[in-house]
Amino acid sequence: MAEKADALKITRRDEDYSRWYLDIVDRAKLAEDSGIRGCMIIRPEGFAIWEKMQQTLDGMFKDTGHTNAYFPVFIPVSYFSKEAEHVSGFAKECAVVTHHRLQLTESGEITVDPDAELSEPLVVRPTSETIIWSAYRNWIQSYRDLPILLNQWANICRWELRTRPFLRTTEFLWQEGHTAHATADEAEAEARQMLEIYKTFVEQYLAIPVFAGRKTENEKFPGAVHTYTIETMTQDKRAIQVGTSHNLGTTFSKAFDVKYLSAEGTQEYPFATSWGITTRMIGTLIMVHSDDRGFVCPPRIAPLQVIGVPIYRKDAEKEQVLARFTELQEQFKATKAFSFKVDTRDNLSPGFKFNDWELKGIPLRLEMGPRDLANGTAVLVRRDTGEKINVAQTDLESQIKTLLEDIQISLFKRAQEFQQQNLHFVETYAEFQQQIEEKAGFYVAYFDGNSDDEEKIKEETKATGRCIPFDLQQGTGKCFYTGRQTDRRVIFARAY
Amino acid sequence: MAEKADALKITRRDEDYSRWYLDIVDRAKLAEDSGIRGCMIIRPEGFAIWEKMQQTLDGMFKDTGHTNAYFPVFIPVSYFSKEAEHVSGFAKECAVVTHHRLQLTESGEITVDPDAELSEPLVVRPTSETIIWSAYRNWIQSYRDLPILLNQWANICRWELRTRPFLRTTEFLWQEGHTAHATADEAEAEARQMLEIYKTFVEQYLAIPVFAGRKTENEKFPGAVHTYTIETMTQDKRAIQVGTSHNLGTTFSKAFDVKYLSAEGTQEYPFATSWGITTRMIGTLIMVHSDDRGFVCPPRIAPLQVIGVPIYRKDAEKEQVLARFTELQEQFKATKAFSFKVDTRDNLSPGFKFNDWELKGIPLRLEMGPRDLANGTAVLVRRDTGEKINVAQTDLESQIKTLLEDIQISLFKRAQEFQQQNLHFVETYAEFQQQIEEKAGFYVAYFDGNSDDEEKIKEETKATGRCIPFDLQQGTGKCFYTGRQTDRRVIFARAY
Repeated sequence: MAEKADALKITRRDEDYSRWYLDIVDRAKLAEDSGIRGCMIIRPEGFAIWEKMQQTLDGMFKDTGHTNAYFPVFIPVSYFSKEAEHVSGFAKECAVVTHHRLQLTESGEITVDPDAELSEPLVVRPTSETIIWSAYRNWIQSYRDLPILLNQWANICRWELRTRPFLRTTEFLWQEGHTAHATADEAEAEARQMLEIYKTFVEQYLAIPVFAGRKTENEKFPGAVHTYTIETMTQDKRAIQVGTSHNLGTTFSKAFDVKYLSAEGTQEYPFATSWGITTRMIGTLIMVHSDDRGFVCPPRIAPLQVIGVPIYRKDAEKEQVLARFTELQEQFKATKAFSFKVDTRDNLSPGFKFNDWELKGIPLRLEMGPRDLANGTAVLVRRDTGEKINVAQTDLESQIKTLLEDIQISLFKRAQEFQQQNLHFVETYAEFQQQIEEKAGFYVAYFDGNSDDEEKIKEETKATGRCIPFDLQQGTGKCFYTGRQTDRRVIFARAY
Repeated sequence: MAEKADALKITRRDEDYSRWYLDIVDRAKLAEDSGIRGCMIIRPEGFAIWEKMQQTLDGMFKDTGHTNAYFPVFIPVSYFSKEAEHVSGFAKECAVVTHHRLQLTESGEITVDPDAELSEPLVVRPTSETIIWSAYRNWIQSYRDLPILLNQWANICRWELRTRPFLRTTEFLWQEGHTAHATADEAEAEARQMLEIYKTFVEQYLAIPVFAGRKTENEKFPGAVHTYTIETMTQDKRAIQVGTSHNLGTTFSKAFDVKYLSAEGTQEYPFATSWGITTRMIGTLIMVHSDDRGFVCPPRIAPLQVIGVPIYRKDAEKEQVLARFTELQEQFKATKAFSFKVDTRDNLSPGFKFNDWELKGIPLRLEMGPRDLANGTAVLVRRDTGEKINVAQTDLESQIKTLLEDIQISLFKRAQEFQQQNLHFVETYAEFQQQIEEKAGFYVAYFDGNSDDEEKIKEETKATGRCIPFDLQQGTGKCFYTGRQTDRRVIFARAY
């Protein structure tokens, strides 16, 4: 048991935040390194969270008229060449398939068969605009074919130099929406609608408050007219981009020569959007909510919401306690009020189980022993605050429902307060440089600089323009970098 | 309109069965060629079927205690070398990633960057036993860690020489279960249980009757002790393997040195299974149920079950008819009895719409015009038989439910009768050779030949041993190839 307890130990956040993050991923069994450069294995505990994210988002996409499809994972190199900005954004670090066969050499080694070289190398998709717009050329002829509202759930590969499970990996899972519209206004409305859907999902299900806004020139998607983003703050006061939505204008319809016959009989280029959200959300959950005791999962996205831990010493007690847990299990299953499991493992002490389920982030724990049963009570323990609540047996179901809702709201509020406390307004660049060095955080400043200015700020402070937040635009002021008058405010922060 | 009608024309089955198949895939918009060798695009109409398959099967897997996880798409070449049979089965035709960067040459071309060669090439997964068992080495230490019951939904790549949409493609989608057990009996029971789940799903949802059985030595999975399979018959009387389940014994635990400490304190190798079913099922649906008018989709797997086609000439009629359709749409949505849509396209005639939805395989069509409304009736048209049924407006919902059930059962029965009619029992090899040449079909024969014999039979007749069917074993007889006495009967057929 001592060994096991050691294996569960987590580095404290104030000791080493990066190490703490990796410990949570590992000890809560969310993911593990695969031994293949930058690729993670998403373990059942982590994947169950992704499944809940998928189900919820997929429902929201379908409610807004989108359907799913599937496009090949391989994209010929020539497709990338069609859009210059796009190729420079994605061709640099990607997995390239060059051969289609292995061979067994005479010495018994397995190597690539040099006789099986492809005539054109294939890139493992880093994003699918090019292959999808290549197909849309056949799908779009008339205004009657528009809009096309498609989404794809897929694996994606970007050969990142520095990786970190969930936050930045060579392979990750995501969804990518790709739509085509007759007018620029429709495309803009779609891009904004999808950002709004992401914001609603992330705030209401993940309990993560975000800043929604537009990306600056330097940070937008290669080939986009506008990129919209939602950004949140980690506990070490850095930024994480949670989801993005792009108004791609006619960049891809022109690159792939897609035209449609309008109702008026003219040939027109359709307008595009794309939007995506990834397994990075699981890493964001950790960085926003979790603590030194382990993972903290908001109830609405938790695959398991309540864990029951029976407490007994003698066999007679065990039988009585387990019988009551079984009754409750049947009751909760029938009413579908929340998901519930009982930890019946015989070889572990209640104390070990408490730690184990706290580490795994289960929102609420139900403890019952013979004394509780005699008193007609039970104990509920909140994962977020550690608070113990004595509840009458008769009130269990309603109390659990209330507490789960309360945990959901509390997590959101706590994160929001933290975000507000670490959101600073600065007027001068010197002030910004000093403060971000001293206490990190998000910095709102009037800014009208160009890409070069952004690059210099990044070099000097390691901070980037995270977004032009919709909600924080107000009047005009002097740009903190160029000194020119502007009405544009930008959030700067160091980011993951 | 004439042009459109031409574009929808389908080759007759008796004219060219292969062309007919491709026409259905194309005209029903299930999938299309991507332009990338052997890779298809699964269009929304096709993908919606896959989603229903996924949801149903995923529920069945979870009900039997399985959970989902996700392992990397890239497998180092060295992993394959660990299991000799497995490498010879899969390394021959696979996509190999050798580089991680493209470069822009001085002449403006984009090519593979020779400086970005990987130290070890990566194979795009053709199946995941090796990478999963490499992870299980860390997951399995004690008998308490067993069983592991995992499943993964993923894309798979096999560099096939001849491809055909859904049936054989370079990239396809599937699920792969990978389990680990303490005993050989448990693994065997798991492999059999999963085959039974596949059979239930395919028969009850896809209305496809199958023969379940064990694969012969020649046809089993590379590295398996036993491979179990379900096989069905196409309309051109060939075999399609619909799903397989493998008892892998200790092949992979030994190859990856995975051991566990038993309750008795000894070190043991765990026993493995794997099982998979793929997007090939969509091709099988076509080959079993569809006809010269297009795709036929069994109601229980059809994303859209009933299509409404309003019939009107004047604007006043249109308003009245559409109002009734809207009422029905709300009624059916509220009762969730079945999925229903109304074709309100204004630029197309009812006749065109009838053909269009028949082509797309929607099980039932609801036609209503002003005369029907005046009479308090409506017309239902079955996709499977073309039968028109006059129904009272008041009975619509219950009649539709009954008819959908009846279509489901009829499709199964029709396929089953066809299968029985084309299942032949043969005693001599000469008889078999003559008959399979004359009329194709499935041939049951006593057979105790070895792998070499199977190879010879394949060369001589293009037929392979499809399975040793559970339900057709009976007594003993003389092997139709070796002449030796045996109690094993095998189904031989030409296969897709």
